Amino acid sequence: MRAEFITSVANQKVKKLTALQKKAKLRREEQTFIIEGERLFRDTPARFVREIFVTEEFLIANEKLVSRKLAETERAVPVTVLTQAVFEKVSATQTPQGVMCAARMPSYEMKDLMGSGKNTAAPLLLILENIQDPGNLGTIFRTAEAAGATGILMSEGTADLFNPKTVRATMSAIFRMPFVYTRDLTGDIVRLRDEGVQVYAAHLGAKKAYDEYDYRGASAFLIGNEGNGLTDAAAGAASHRLLIPMQGEIESLNAAMAAGILAYEASRQRRHPEA
Amino acid sequence: MRAEFITSVANQKVKKLTALQKKAKLRREEQTFIIEGERLFRDTPARFVREIFVTEEFLIANEKLVSRKLAETERAVPVTVLTQAVFEKVSATQTPQGVMCAARMPSYEMKDLMGSGKNTAAPLLLILENIQDPGNLGTIFRTAEAAGATGILMSEGTADLFNPKTVRATMSAIFRMPFVYTRDLTGDIVRLRDEGVQVYAAHLGAKKAYDEYDYRGASAFLIGNEGNGLTDAAAGAASHRLLIPMQGEIESLNAAMAAGILAYEASRQRRHPEA
Repeated sequence: MRAEFITSVANQKVKKLTALQKKAKLRREEQTFIIEGERLFRDTPARFVREIFVTEEFLIANEKLVSRKLAETERAVPVTVLTQAVFEKVSATQTPQGVMCAARMPSYEMKDLMGSGKNTAAPLLLILENIQDPGNLGTIFRTAEAAGATGILMSEGTADLFNPKTVRATMSAIFRMPFVYTRDLTGDIVRLRDEGVQVYAAHLGAKKAYDEYDYRGASAFLIGNEGNGLTDAAAGAASHRLLIPMQGEIESLNAAMAAGILAYEASRQRRHPEA
Repeated sequence: MRAEFITSVANQKVKKLTALQKKAKLRREEQTFIIEGERLFRDTPARFVREIFVTEEFLIANEKLVSRKLAETERAVPVTVLTQAVFEKVSATQTPQGVMCAARMPSYEMKDLMGSGKNTAAPLLLILENIQDPGNLGTIFRTAEAAGATGILMSEGTADLFNPKTVRATMSAIFRMPFVYTRDLTGDIVRLRDEGVQVYAAHLGAKKAYDEYDYRGASAFLIGNEGNGLTDAAAGAASHRLLIPMQGEIESLNAAMAAGILAYEASRQRRHPEA
């Protein structure tokens, strides 16, 4: 395998890599983001791989893994070897594992959120309005895939999915879970309803508990911002409101937790079609 | 109200406060931890308040709140006013709100985890083995209270509940949810079983899905470490193993998410006693 060696943080490629870790705007312009760590690198489908960055130590220990990934791309993907010092400088993690990858951003349309193939008899969507915490957003992607969700629709004000912390928290679901950022969340909710999707707003003012609805048909859960909940516009556009009952003195659940509990209730019901 | 003013970070009290934010060992020795932020301060029961630290700005804007909290303690609780600069220096948050409180650690025995009063017909426990992420641990406490859990048992190797990040994530459930750290997790699991508690180990190797068990009797969910899952000893001591079914290519759920999904399944069943 041919590789370029970089020993200085002043190198242009290194500067670009650092900027891609830090700047959402640059990531959007280049439609490129950075994944980091052996596990995520393994799980990154070859078609998304644009460039590979490793330490010499990682390359020596994992040459087969890197060669296989390169072969799978069926393209001329550059491999760059960084010194340990340079790698640590560009890494977004506390304990760098010696491998990063510049990856192409997946891109989807609304129809992709409705499921395909074996994945779905009925669509199951999550709709996120202005979720702010990168860890929450990543965890929602991870949990949504596990629960069998078909897609995630996000308001423009939702955190950047390609933030390194979010990418890590998705556990590579970022490459498999279709998503769309929308400027018109309310309009899209209405359009989903027109297509027969029941949209359930998680709302602290709701009267009906989440387990009193039937989610075996086309369903979507609408989840609001961590601190402020849903806007009236978004909540008003939903078909129904639901409450996750809470005991004790807790006033609300963590947003990712709420999304997971709802998605898993749908998953539970769908595994028991007879009930 | 009488208050001491501190303008220097070299002050002994300030040094102590900083050490209490950072050092788990000191917190244990003093049985004292720090809560921070207006919301947490409001929610801290007066009997736990040992000392209050505020900025002048916070005190002026919230004198009633501070006075009421002081009155509720029915003790001579010191109030210390820190300059903005000193406060920012000791704060564990990025945007300090101007109020901190040194609080007494709650302390419980095993029997306290079994519920009391209206809280419980049947105990519902979470048993955590070596959960490491402070945010996960705090979220588990928050969600456990909301789901009606009666107590949380933790292995000695579980993260420190009194870490500032964990305290914040509990949303003050730390003052209401009984907990015990144990050196003998396996022995305690056996003792819980002897008392009639069914202990369900969340295990990726399990055959039976979590929603195929009945949790309306005395139940406990055993949750393992984020990366390694449960030890064989702990899993082996449980009465049953359960699986949270996962679709797609996700190999495991976030540990707090798994705990929340299980606790809410128990909560759901308990709200429908007839089913």
